[in-house]
Amino acid sequence: MTESARPAPDFDAKALGKILLRSIRAGALATLDREGGHPFASLVTLATDYDGSPLFLMSRLSGHTLNLEADPRASVLLAETGKGDPLAHPRLTVMGTLERSPDPRVRARFLNRHPKAKLYADFADFSFWCMELTGAHLNGGFARAASLSAADLATDLTGAEPLIEVEAGALAHLNDDHRDALDLYATRLSGAPPGHWTAVGIDPEGLDLLAGDQTARLLFPSRVTGPAELRKILKDLADQARLMPEGPAKGA
Amino acid sequence: MTESARPAPDFDAKALGKILLRSIRAGALATLDREGGHPFASLVTLATDYDGSPLFLMSRLSGHTLNLEADPRASVLLAETGKGDPLAHPRLTVMGTLERSPDPRVRARFLNRHPKAKLYADFADFSFWCMELTGAHLNGGFARAASLSAADLATDLTGAEPLIEVEAGALAHLNDDHRDALDLYATRLSGAPPGHWTAVGIDPEGLDLLAGDQTARLLFPSRVTGPAELRKILKDLADQARLMPEGPAKGA
Repeated sequence: MTESARPAPDFDAKALGKILLRSIRAGALATLDREGGHPFASLVTLATDYDGSPLFLMSRLSGHTLNLEADPRASVLLAETGKGDPLAHPRLTVMGTLERSPDPRVRARFLNRHPKAKLYADFADFSFWCMELTGAHLNGGFARAASLSAADLATDLTGAEPLIEVEAGALAHLNDDHRDALDLYATRLSGAPPGHWTAVGIDPEGLDLLAGDQTARLLFPSRVTGPAELRKILKDLADQARLMPEGPAKGA
Repeated sequence: MTESARPAPDFDAKALGKILLRSIRAGALATLDREGGHPFASLVTLATDYDGSPLFLMSRLSGHTLNLEADPRASVLLAETGKGDPLAHPRLTVMGTLERSPDPRVRARFLNRHPKAKLYADFADFSFWCMELTGAHLNGGFARAASLSAADLATDLTGAEPLIEVEAGALAHLNDDHRDALDLYATRLSGAPPGHWTAVGIDPEGLDLLAGDQTARLLFPSRVTGPAELRKILKDLADQARLMPEGPAKGA
C-alpha cells in the first residue's frame, strides 16, 4: 500500500501502530473465500506474541478458518472506537499470512489476554493461529496515514529469552501481590479508567493490562530483557506513579 | 459461505440481518489489494439505498478505492459493539461488487445519514459508490449463524415510487414539525436512548433515525409504498407510542 498523495505523517506512526496492535482485542479479519477468492470480512479476537505477531483462536466451523486453510493470506483491521466520526479515530491494518501453531507459548499468550476463551479453547474444532506480518497500513485519522513495514511494528527479542522465561511467574506475582501497582500503571501511567486491573502479558517494550473488556499497556521507558531489569523498572514506575496526582495521565 | 456443521438458526436471521444492515453506519471493508490480490481490511462509513444496497463515499487517496477500481469484489462486516465478549454480539458480512454511482439519489441517501460528510463530499478525490449484494453471512453470536441471500436482505420496492418521490419532503416535515414523535419512535418503539433524534431516511419497511452518532430504526408494521399510507402509519405509531409507559421498549 503506497499512499504517495498523502503528506508525510506529522505523528509517530510506528509508536501509534504498536499501541493499536498491542491494545485492541478484536478486529475485522479479511480472508479470501475458498470458493472463488471473494474478499471476506469477519470478526475475530486476537492477542500478540512477544514480538508483536498477532495470535488467534479460531474454529473450523467459521468460514474464515476454512478460507485460511485454502489460502493463508489475510489482513486484520484494528480500529479504535469512540464518540464522533469513526473515520476520525486511528486504525491499523496489519497484513500477512496465518498458520496454525501448536506452541504452548501461543496458547498461553492468547488465553492470558482472553481468559473467557478457556471455556472453548479445547473444543475439537478450535486451534491457535499465528500471523507472520508482511506489512501494515496506519490511518491516524483524516489526512494522517502511513505505510509501515513488518519491522516497524516488531518488538526486538534479541537477548530477551530470560524475560520470556520468567513471564508466567512475573505475571502471577504481580497479580497476587501488586494489584495496587497494576491499578496505578493503568490509570496514572496509561490513561485508563480505574478497574480490576490484571497483568496479562510482558514483552521487552511493555506490560499488557486487562480489566474486564478494557485494555491498557504500560510502556517501559527502556528495553527490558531479563528479570532484574523488569523488577527495577516496574518498581521505578510504581514509585513514579505514586508521586503523580490522581486522575488519568494522558500520553503514556 | 455454507456452514453445514452449524445448527439451523433458532432466531429470525433475515430480520436481524436487515436491522444490522440498516442500523450500523461504519464497518470493515474487505477488498483485494491491487498489487497481488492480498485481502485488505479497512474502515468505511456506509448508508443504504431504498432497497437496502450499501452506499459509500470514498476517496481515491484511500487504498481500498484503488483496489476496487482494479477489482470490484468486496465485503463489509457490520458488527454491533457493546460490553462483554465481542464474539457474543451479532454481526453481518455482506458480499457483493461495488461501482461508482453519480445518481443524486445515492448522494442524498448517504449525506442524510452522514451529514458531517458534506464537508468533504465535493472534494475532487471523493465519489459515491453502490454495492450490489450477492449474499451475506450472519453470525448472531455463538452457534447462531446463517447464510442469507441478497433477496433475503433486500427491501422490495415494487410500487414504491410514490413513497420514494416524497421522501425528501416527508423527512423535512418530520424534522421541522414532529420532533416529539421522532423521539417517541426512537425511545419507546426502537429501544434507543433519548437524544436529538432526526429522520434521515424512509423506505417501504421503516424509518431511519439519527441522533449524533446513534442510530435507530422504526420498523413499519406493514409495507408502505405511498404518502397516504406513510402519513397514517406514522400517526398510528406515534399514538401507540404515546400510550406506552416511559422508558425504552426493547424488541421493536
